[in-house]
Amino acid sequence: MNAEIIAVGSELLTPFRQDTNSLFITGKLNELGITVDFKTIVGDRQSDLISVARTALSRASIVIFMGGLGPTEDDLTRECVAETLGRELRRDPTIIEALRERFASRGYKMAENNMKQGDVIAGAEALDNPRGTAPGQWIQIEISGKKKIIILLPGPPHELKHMFEEKCLEKLRNAVPPRHIAVRVLKIAMVPESQADKRAAPIYQAHKGVETTILANAGGEIQFQVRAQALTLEDAQKKVDKVVSELEDEFEDAIFSTQGESLEQIVGYYLQMRGATLSVAESCTGGMLAERLTSVPGSSRYFLGGAVVYDNSLKTSLADVPPLLIKEHGAVSREVAVALAVGIRKRCKTSYGVGITGIAGPGGGTEAKPVGLVYVALSDGDHTSVQERKFPGDRERIRHWATQQALDMVRRKLM
Amino acid sequence: MNAEIIAVGSELLTPFRQDTNSLFITGKLNELGITVDFKTIVGDRQSDLISVARTALSRASIVIFMGGLGPTEDDLTRECVAETLGRELRRDPTIIEALRERFASRGYKMAENNMKQGDVIAGAEALDNPRGTAPGQWIQIEISGKKKIIILLPGPPHELKHMFEEKCLEKLRNAVPPRHIAVRVLKIAMVPESQADKRAAPIYQAHKGVETTILANAGGEIQFQVRAQALTLEDAQKKVDKVVSELEDEFEDAIFSTQGESLEQIVGYYLQMRGATLSVAESCTGGMLAERLTSVPGSSRYFLGGAVVYDNSLKTSLADVPPLLIKEHGAVSREVAVALAVGIRKRCKTSYGVGITGIAGPGGGTEAKPVGLVYVALSDGDHTSVQERKFPGDRERIRHWATQQALDMVRRKLM
Repeated sequence: MNAEIIAVGSELLTPFRQDTNSLFITGKLNELGITVDFKTIVGDRQSDLISVARTALSRASIVIFMGGLGPTEDDLTRECVAETLGRELRRDPTIIEALRERFASRGYKMAENNMKQGDVIAGAEALDNPRGTAPGQWIQIEISGKKKIIILLPGPPHELKHMFEEKCLEKLRNAVPPRHIAVRVLKIAMVPESQADKRAAPIYQAHKGVETTILANAGGEIQFQVRAQALTLEDAQKKVDKVVSELEDEFEDAIFSTQGESLEQIVGYYLQMRGATLSVAESCTGGMLAERLTSVPGSSRYFLGGAVVYDNSLKTSLADVPPLLIKEHGAVSREVAVALAVGIRKRCKTSYGVGITGIAGPGGGTEAKPVGLVYVALSDGDHTSVQERKFPGDRERIRHWATQQALDMVRRKLM
Repeated sequence: MNAEIIAVGSELLTPFRQDTNSLFITGKLNELGITVDFKTIVGDRQSDLISVARTALSRASIVIFMGGLGPTEDDLTRECVAETLGRELRRDPTIIEALRERFASRGYKMAENNMKQGDVIAGAEALDNPRGTAPGQWIQIEISGKKKIIILLPGPPHELKHMFEEKCLEKLRNAVPPRHIAVRVLKIAMVPESQADKRAAPIYQAHKGVETTILANAGGEIQFQVRAQALTLEDAQKKVDKVVSELEDEFEDAIFSTQGESLEQIVGYYLQMRGATLSVAESCTGGMLAERLTSVPGSSRYFLGGAVVYDNSLKTSLADVPPLLIKEHGAVSREVAVALAVGIRKRCKTSYGVGITGIAGPGGGTEAKPVGLVYVALSDGDHTSVQERKFPGDRERIRHWATQQALDMVRRKLM
């Protein structure tokens, strides 16, 4: 069975807004073995909406409308779908009563224009919306001997997601032939996208029944999503596991996560597992590494803090880097990275200390020390390792690569 | 004139990828007075592509295809558009020669399957692609007495943007009636979205010819985009200025930017203008404020750095907060925020110091000190001001609100 998803709303046709609900819906449909063949975005004009509805019903078995169920004049999805199907709208007194109570419980009187939210297409089932005022609708019909399912959902993401999960998934599962889908996610750090694809392609191309998607973020992280369908979950898992184990052989310890965790979460797990603590001294990344570490709830158990030593005087006053060392080797140097890691570790009394110094650009580069040059050091008190890297891209990307490098060094150290 | 944008590629129908090119194209079309009425996303199946092309040509004057111009079997946009128009494809020897040279200059032999990238729809003009191998195409035709423009663009964003700007904009400008468009952007800080909309609605609703879009990010920033069209630029600007000046009267000094600058850029301007410097001591925001400040190129001129004092011991060792103060008032308190601001300012020898402490959640809240409670302090050496705020949302949002509050306090101090 195939689906078309239709996002309704003129704001989605501006340069500033974008439908993202369809990604969520697509994920859920795929889990049921339903593919999405078309997505359409249309404004609030009646004739446009009817044209889109007609086209969708001619080419998809499941048509999902998102948005246009509100109380204003611009909200026309109900009316247009009814007209496309040649059915009338019937005002449901139970819905009106529930709406009235909803408003009353908050001390408001229901406005007249909310009345139309009680209009249900003849033959449709209304879908309760506990998170908002717009009920959804579910319609099963036959057009030219073909079964069609039409679903109307509200536009706000938290209303739509809740309604789709609670009211639609079970119905859809009963309406489509049973399938089982297995998915695994592998994440790797510090391998450029082109290289990752080149190394992975012979593997995923040899397994045609398994779908492998490669996603790269701009700062040194690659995700492989491996999916397969089968009549039993066991068969689907077998297919996926085969590809995953070949990818694991290829990428070995560059793989940092097999359950979807972020690199900062993984580093957190390892630190907690070992009862260890971490501090950081950041120059060019200016707090980004600390921000990533503290984005994980509970990170205070292993991350104590550190210093943002943008100015050279702070490299000394907050992380005890000797001024002479900076003078001799320059602020962006292997030696200063090491001194930052050693100094911040001592200051913060942590098991490990990280130091980062580099040139994030766009200015400040020289021939000897170009934009993108970064030194990252990791100290455990006895030993300090340091990596020199030359990262590509703009300021934002270089800074992200540098934090990724630091996190990956900590991970490998603790592995 | 109205347009339909069609994104081609099966990967755009997965839960992981999303067309973003259409936002760029929409912005450029709007500047020419062309509205986008439909967006369609379709996979690489021939019959689907032809159905989508046919529908688009029946309802839009300008139809823009993005993607599907590569050399593989899945790249079918050329073939499908030709079939929809009932025209043949002609292999252009000049394009083939240029492709061959492109590959040769990099030391590669052109593969056989690249040959089809030289196929041009009869009557179309090929659009050179200096950034990739896929040329675009531009076709002007008449269907049932109506003029239509069809554009084929490559999918990769950097190829598409370059080709659209260099090869298509001028042609489009000549093809549509002349219009002038004026745009102004206002940004405001620390006003919740619902309140901003409520206060702005009477203004923008009273000016029907002016289009006002409100964009809110999740952490305390609202953007008003005000746009108007007219036959002369002066008239368009007059219309926009009227709405802008009314918005300025309503929001007064909550407006921090009228030229699109970010709040961290504005704070940077003010600090530089006054020859002043800044340092920060962050607890719950864990480096996010420093990260935002240092995301601005050249920020080393006014931002010296600071400390991430996640652990209480570091509040003392890096920012000189007396341990007794923490014991007496708790780490999340007005008093500790003040001590952090004062302490870090002295340590870093800056004109201003900021201290942040709070509960970002999801854990750690109590009845007296719930998740979302944040104290932000700003010290100039003589005086220290402090704000207690209760921010909504999840960990990420609370942290972002807190950094926004800090930046806005610095801005207001320097204004």
